[in-house]
Amino acid sequence: MEVTVRWQGKRAFEAVGPSGHVVRIDAAPEVGGEDGGARPMELLLMGAGGCTGIDVALMLEKMRLHLERFEVRLEGERAEADPRRYTRIRLHYILEGPDLTHEKVVRVIDLSRRVYCSALHSLNAALEVRYTLNGETRDLPPDAS
Amino acid sequence: MEVTVRWQGKRAFEAVGPSGHVVRIDAAPEVGGEDGGARPMELLLMGAGGCTGIDVALMLEKMRLHLERFEVRLEGERAEADPRRYTRIRLHYILEGPDLTHEKVVRVIDLSRRVYCSALHSLNAALEVRYTLNGETRDLPPDAS
Repeated sequence: MEVTVRWQGKRAFEAVGPSGHVVRIDAAPEVGGEDGGARPMELLLMGAGGCTGIDVALMLEKMRLHLERFEVRLEGERAEADPRRYTRIRLHYILEGPDLTHEKVVRVIDLSRRVYCSALHSLNAALEVRYTLNGETRDLPPDAS
Repeated sequence: MEVTVRWQGKRAFEAVGPSGHVVRIDAAPEVGGEDGGARPMELLLMGAGGCTGIDVALMLEKMRLHLERFEVRLEGERAEADPRRYTRIRLHYILEGPDLTHEKVVRVIDLSRRVYCSALHSLNAALEVRYTLNGETRDLPPDAS
């Protein structure tokens, strides 16, 4: 996988990879940017959320379970000192669907987290996972499977 | 930092964070997607490249050094077995500008890599760094500073 990030002046960049979809990146005005695109640290969480989201949507589809609504919220906690990396990421999966059960939802989230999700495994942050299924929120224990 | 990744059907998601810039994510058709957005693993490299790119552009601006062209190419090498995380990332900085010297370019790239870049430090891959300054390519040694 190769990506090119091209400078557009000041703090702005345009990024493009093999898919051809251009992503604009910029810093906030308070650090000299012009807010012309997403922040780099947002893109890391978006990549992680998209990766595990695709895993979960794919596995539920294979199980022929219908999703009515699905989102993943990711909260990244950063170190206080430079380089201020993500030390902990809290993932919250929110799912709605009439056929979904806690057992099946725990199974697919755990498989993504433990086995399949390339992006989550590419980050060196600790993970905390919880989910809300049809309005009921539960933590996903580290040894869910 | 909190980001929400919302499912749009099949393998498609829309991601948004505090900046408000929406990033579309989708899988390739060969894995059930519709190519409606960037791949999650592209976003990780884009975030890393944008982060170190902003660092370098900012430091050169502070040093009053004029950039005529600047891009960062990132090549991610992945593990063969699931979860196929990035094990190694090769960064190639390409810079053009009449006032730039090898010494100054090495200094700012090394400061970003070692001290400032939150996104690079949030990834657990090994890094290999080289740069091309006004057409001349050199490796950046791990102990550049």
